[in-house]
Amino acid sequence: MNDIIDQYRVTQEPYYRPVADEVELFEAAYSVRMPMMLKGPTGCGKTRFVEYMANKLGKPLITVACNEDMTASDLVGRFLLDAQGTRWQDGPLALAARHGAICYLDEVVEARQDTTVVIHPLTDNRRVLPLEKKGELLRAHPDFQIVISYNPGYQSLMKDLKQSTKQRFGGLDFNYPERGIETEIVAHETGISLEVAGKLVSIAERSRNLKGHGLDEGLSTRMLIYAGSLIAKGVNPISACRVALVRPVTDDPDMRDALDAAVATFF
Amino acid sequence: MNDIIDQYRVTQEPYYRPVADEVELFEAAYSVRMPMMLKGPTGCGKTRFVEYMANKLGKPLITVACNEDMTASDLVGRFLLDAQGTRWQDGPLALAARHGAICYLDEVVEARQDTTVVIHPLTDNRRVLPLEKKGELLRAHPDFQIVISYNPGYQSLMKDLKQSTKQRFGGLDFNYPERGIETEIVAHETGISLEVAGKLVSIAERSRNLKGHGLDEGLSTRMLIYAGSLIAKGVNPISACRVALVRPVTDDPDMRDALDAAVATFF
Amino acid sequence: MNDIIDQYRVTQEPYYRPVADEVELFEAAYSVRMPMMLKGPTGCGKTRFVEYMANKLGKPLITVACNEDMTASDLVGRFLLDAQGTRWQDGPLALAARHGAICYLDEVVEARQDTTVVIHPLTDNRRVLPLEKKGELLRAHPDFQIVISYNPGYQSLMKDLKQSTKQRFGGLDFNYPERGIETEIVAHETGISLEVAGKLVSIAERSRNLKGHGLDEGLSTRMLIYAGSLIAKGVNPISACRVALVRPVTDDPDMRDALDAAVATFF
Amino acid sequence: MNDIIDQYRVTQEPYYRPVADEVELFEAAYSVRMPMMLKGPTGCGKTRFVEYMANKLGKPLITVACNEDMTASDLVGRFLLDAQGTRWQDGPLALAARHGAICYLDEVVEARQDTTVVIHPLTDNRRVLPLEKKGELLRAHPDFQIVISYNPGYQSLMKDLKQSTKQRFGGLDFNYPERGIETEIVAHETGISLEVAGKLVSIAERSRNLKGHGLDEGLSTRMLIYAGSLIAKGVNPISACRVALVRPVTDDPDMRDALDAAVATFF
Amino acid sequence: MNDIIDQYRVTQEPYYRPVADEVELFEAAYSVRMPMMLKGPTGCGKTRFVEYMANKLGKPLITVACNEDMTASDLVGRFLLDAQGTRWQDGPLALAARHGAICYLDEVVEARQDTTVVIHPLTDNRRVLPLEKKGELLRAHPDFQIVISYNPGYQSLMKDLKQSTKQRFGGLDFNYPERGIETEIVAHETGISLEVAGKLVSIAERSRNLKGHGLDEGLSTRMLIYAGSLIAKGVNPISACRVALVRPVTDDPDMRDALDAAVATFF
Amino acid sequence: MNDIIDQYRVTQEPYYRPVADEVELFEAAYSVRMPMMLKGPTGCGKTRFVEYMANKLGKPLITVACNEDMTASDLVGRFLLDAQGTRWQDGPLALAARHGAICYLDEVVEARQDTTVVIHPLTDNRRVLPLEKKGELLRAHPDFQIVISYNPGYQSLMKDLKQSTKQRFGGLDFNYPERGIETEIVAHETGISLEVAGKLVSIAERSRNLKGHGLDEGLSTRMLIYAGSLIAKGVNPISACRVALVRPVTDDPDMRDALDAAVATFF
Repeated sequence: MNDIIDQYRVTQEPYYRPVADEVELFEAAYSVRMPMMLKGPTGCGKTRFVEYMANKLGKPLITVACNEDMTASDLVGRFLLDAQGTRWQDGPLALAARHGAICYLDEVVEARQDTTVVIHPLTDNRRVLPLEKKGELLRAHPDFQIVISYNPGYQSLMKDLKQSTKQRFGGLDFNYPERGIETEIVAHETGISLEVAGKLVSIAERSRNLKGHGLDEGLSTRMLIYAGSLIAKGVNPISACRVALVRPVTDDPDMRDALDAAVATFF
Repeated sequence: MNDIIDQYRVTQEPYYRPVADEVELFEAAYSVRMPMMLKGPTGCGKTRFVEYMANKLGKPLITVACNEDMTASDLVGRFLLDAQGTRWQDGPLALAARHGAICYLDEVVEARQDTTVVIHPLTDNRRVLPLEKKGELLRAHPDFQIVISYNPGYQSLMKDLKQSTKQRFGGLDFNYPERGIETEIVAHETGISLEVAGKLVSIAERSRNLKGHGLDEGLSTRMLIYAGSLIAKGVNPISACRVALVRPVTDDPDMRDALDAAVATFF
Repeated sequence: MNDIIDQYRVTQEPYYRPVADEVELFEAAYSVRMPMMLKGPTGCGKTRFVEYMANKLGKPLITVACNEDMTASDLVGRFLLDAQGTRWQDGPLALAARHGAICYLDEVVEARQDTTVVIHPLTDNRRVLPLEKKGELLRAHPDFQIVISYNPGYQSLMKDLKQSTKQRFGGLDFNYPERGIETEIVAHETGISLEVAGKLVSIAERSRNLKGHGLDEGLSTRMLIYAGSLIAKGVNPISACRVALVRPVTDDPDMRDALDAAVATFF
Repeated sequence: MNDIIDQYRVTQEPYYRPVADEVELFEAAYSVRMPMMLKGPTGCGKTRFVEYMANKLGKPLITVACNEDMTASDLVGRFLLDAQGTRWQDGPLALAARHGAICYLDEVVEARQDTTVVIHPLTDNRRVLPLEKKGELLRAHPDFQIVISYNPGYQSLMKDLKQSTKQRFGGLDFNYPERGIETEIVAHETGISLEVAGKLVSIAERSRNLKGHGLDEGLSTRMLIYAGSLIAKGVNPISACRVALVRPVTDDPDMRDALDAAVATFF
Repeated sequence: MNDIIDQYRVTQEPYYRPVADEVELFEAAYSVRMPMMLKGPTGCGKTRFVEYMANKLGKPLITVACNEDMTASDLVGRFLLDAQGTRWQDGPLALAARHGAICYLDEVVEARQDTTVVIHPLTDNRRVLPLEKKGELLRAHPDFQIVISYNPGYQSLMKDLKQSTKQRFGGLDFNYPERGIETEIVAHETGISLEVAGKLVSIAERSRNLKGHGLDEGLSTRMLIYAGSLIAKGVNPISACRVALVRPVTDDPDMRDALDAAVATFF
Repeated sequence: MNDIIDQYRVTQEPYYRPVADEVELFEAAYSVRMPMMLKGPTGCGKTRFVEYMANKLGKPLITVACNEDMTASDLVGRFLLDAQGTRWQDGPLALAARHGAICYLDEVVEARQDTTVVIHPLTDNRRVLPLEKKGELLRAHPDFQIVISYNPGYQSLMKDLKQSTKQRFGGLDFNYPERGIETEIVAHETGISLEVAGKLVSIAERSRNLKGHGLDEGLSTRMLIYAGSLIAKGVNPISACRVALVRPVTDDPDMRDALDAAVATFF
């Protein structure tokens, strides 16, 4: 059984560059096992942060990429059939609750609003998970914590968390790191010079100003790292930016020209 | 079999601070096994109340967090396959009816309107649950009672209980406790001083006045307890309120500023 | 096999107070095995009436609370897997048809319109039920009768019975009993005095005048019995009416005040 | 195997009173195995006609009440699991095609338009039914014929047969029989006098003039037989008409009064 | 295994009267295994043509009547359970690809647009079918060809083939044959005289002018053959046309009268 | 196990004519295992390009034609039942990740937006695939890369990739090759002369100018190759163009005439 949980241990410290007091606040929240909600745009480091914290706290981390087809059974578990008949298979949420892992539900608004209801009994002082099909009332391990992420920009009337879910979580805001830190991150992750990394960050800043004016979302730190990696492999920076930054974010010819021009300005 | 039901016993008296005659009314309702409906906003103590009553009455409590994907089989039970062939597994409603537990259907409006129909034969004088797949007409244990909760604020034309369901229940209104009691509760549950708890309640009161004016729901007692827990752990009260009170309830920058200002007023 | 059907016998005569010639008409309808449709508002006694008739006629009664998720297999039956392979399990409709029970489909409009089509071959002179999955053409037992209920008030364009279904049934109208009879019923069922019961009926009459003017449905006889039961247990009549009559039927503050005022008038 | 098909034989000649040349036309159509479509309002005798023809032609009759949830597998067949593994179970359409029965799909427009596509290969000169799951191309028995019914009055843009389906069938129109014949039928089926039967027919004629003016459908011959049966059992004719004719067809108070008045005119 | 495919051989040459160069074009297309799309109204001979070509080319023909409920597994195959565990069962598409048959998807627009995507890898130069559930990459037999039919008249925004599907097929237009040929076909298939067949064709021509002016579709050659068959059996031509031509295509009284008048003109 | 993956090796170098620096950019992207997105119209060579690259890089290629009914299990894998109980079957994505193949998701926008979420953990630095049903956290083989294609022309509000998906990919634009290259490709693939191939390209160019003016999509290179193949088999060029170019792309008579005229201009 420990084998199953051990594969979820974050054994190498992930590179994470704190931007404010988020590490301390998360530690305090963990100390009272407060369920946490990480809010921010795509690719700004929420997933990396939770990996960093799992490593720092020495707890296994079970990540679930949420999606609309996810059923309660996908989270909680199900019976499987084998030679001896049926055998219960814990889902990721039950696994985390039973073994004291941090369970990270990524992009939780993608899940059907009502599926998220199954986490409720784990988020108040009961800290239980009813495995109704198994007839077991699973009491969460003392180390268990639940963390969710979501991107407020996607939120619509149709897809938002219910207040009765939101009010069960503490919240931390995330955003793209400020210029100096982001430059450092890009250089560190790709091996390119701070100067070239700074140019990539400048392009990203321009794109972020276009958010809501033809772009759904600005360029993320993750994309800058992709571009930097290509440059580090010897690809011409303009081609690298075309492939890794511009083509992925837009199909609109005008917007593409505007971003290509921004690339040309810096390289 | 008793093992299964015993895990649902509420062995420790939960902390509950009565606000009116709700305890006596519930006892009277239980004495005639009247099905009960607890109405009120999220996080005001409905779940805690039913745990308190289950402990007081000495009955096991089986809680079901309702959701739209819940089928009648999830409530009633199903056949599972094992080495000897199929084996019937009572669902939570059948389990409660058979063993004389209180069955608490939390946020019942989330369930599909027509799924709730399966509770009808348990809520009139027949007190039976037809397990059609099993060919059994389960007569409820004399101790069995059914309790549902719902939040009238969520109610819409699309999602409301049918009159033929509502009329099968007695109703109790819940709301946030009045100032003095709520302060006591927050202090008791977190260990912070009455003075600090009072400040948190003041912030909550401001937020509740904003309900319908940019906030879907005011801050709940449960959230104040989260904030108090962080403060008790040494977190700066302003940070604690940001994490536990403001960030979870709103993504709107103006509303966030208004709530942050309220926090700054008191701390 | 008889064990299965015997559990559906109504061994104790249920208390039922006839209001017109409905008992005689039902007996005549049963004598020619005419399928019957009981029409009327929720909680006015349709279910009790069919139990009374089943007892009077000495036939078992199988009741099915219809819902939108009910499939044809839920009514007709299915194969279950056990150690010897699959085994056929009659559904409630097949069980009733095979053993000569009265099959009562409660709130039949809730079922998907087309699911109700499976009852057609049982409602004309063929009186057969094709169990297509089993390859059996089940000929109904001579004692079998089918009874459905529905509440015309719920009926909409989306959810009504098809004419080709309706025309297969005889119809009986039900309504709340007239004042004197309803008072008697409430007193008989709860043990309170005729005077107090009369006050409850007066409150109900007021509410029934509000139907369509802010109330979806008036207070039912069943609710008066709930209120009376609380009063009989010593609960203050005003509290009893609040819990059992007013809170369940409305969330609208004005309507609640109007009903509370009606309660105050009589108690 | 013959046992299975023998239960579908129509061993007693059903009472059927021809109204025109429909019997001869159907015999000619059967002689070339032309698929047939019976069109007409509910309760006018389409089902009885096909039973009569099956008896006259000496062929088994397999009737399927179509509905929206019917899948192609429900018609064609499926694998069932038993102790020796899976076993193929012919659906009613395959059973009829294999053994040379008449397959009658009642109210075929209720089936999903595209499910009806599975009958196509049986309705052109190929006369085959691909049992794709079984890997068998079933060639229809020479005696096999397919018959469908539908009620043009129900037809809408959403629910009509496709032209590519319609064009595979010959068509016969049905309607309520003319006065003299209908009176005879009602008297014959119930044992009441021709005079009383004539009164019932008169009431039906009035109701049929109201079709489209507040009534979805006029009173059918089948309903008159229900009313007559009650009268034959000694029920007062006015009560019998109320139960068997008026209550089933309308919930509208004005229409009910109009029909009750028509009843009062004749009885 | 050959038994399975042999039942799909078209051993008798079907009667087919070419109208242009469609036979030669199809042969050329087959010689390069170009996937083909047959376009034209219902009942004009598309299915007959593909049977004729399969016989001429000496290849087995597997026909699938497409419908909206058809899943990718229905085309590709699935695991079935038997005594030895699961056993793979090729679907019709896999069967055809494996054994070198012509696979004919009739009325392909009825299938869900995205289900048709499974045929893509078979329609470009890869000619493979990934059986993902089986973990097999099935390479098509050199003789395999895919043919689809569709009726452009049914096409709507909701139900059309995607360009990325259409562009994978060559196209052949079909229509009702011209007068002389159609008369020959009807006489040949039914045994009636050329004179009577000519009258039936004249009626069809009138109906085809009404397409889009009250008729969804004109009378097809297939319907004329039905009418001719009844006449050959001795049915009065006017009755035969009523049953086989007029009643199936319309429920509109005016249109029915117009068509009945056309019949009366010629007979 | 190697047998399973070996069938996905591209052993013959596919014919591919580079149009710009796409080969080098893809190699660089592969060297850092950057997930790639190929954008462009149908039939312009995206699939051929990825086969060419898989052959050049010496990696197996697993292609998945995405569709709306594809579930996460179709990508990730599922338990199958056999004689020894259940056995895990890797889906194509798990297979590719486990064995180091390139996984190509063709027309990824066809998949449900949220199903695509399952690829997220494989597209950031974690490079893992949680097989939740199996309780395994699959770490991708170092050779594994994910490639997706999509056609921006199809994109709509309803069906577009989420930014949080897009930002995980580098992007390469594809289009029809320029005149000279396209002529070469058509001649090479069909064996017709450069002159005839050039005429086909001229027809295609005209059609591409009609895109958005009555045509959804211009003629693709793939269609020109179909037409050329028929010509090489001796079919008259005008007939070949009718069958392979004009009939497949349009049902509109005016557009068909315009394209037929374009064909007549060149042949």
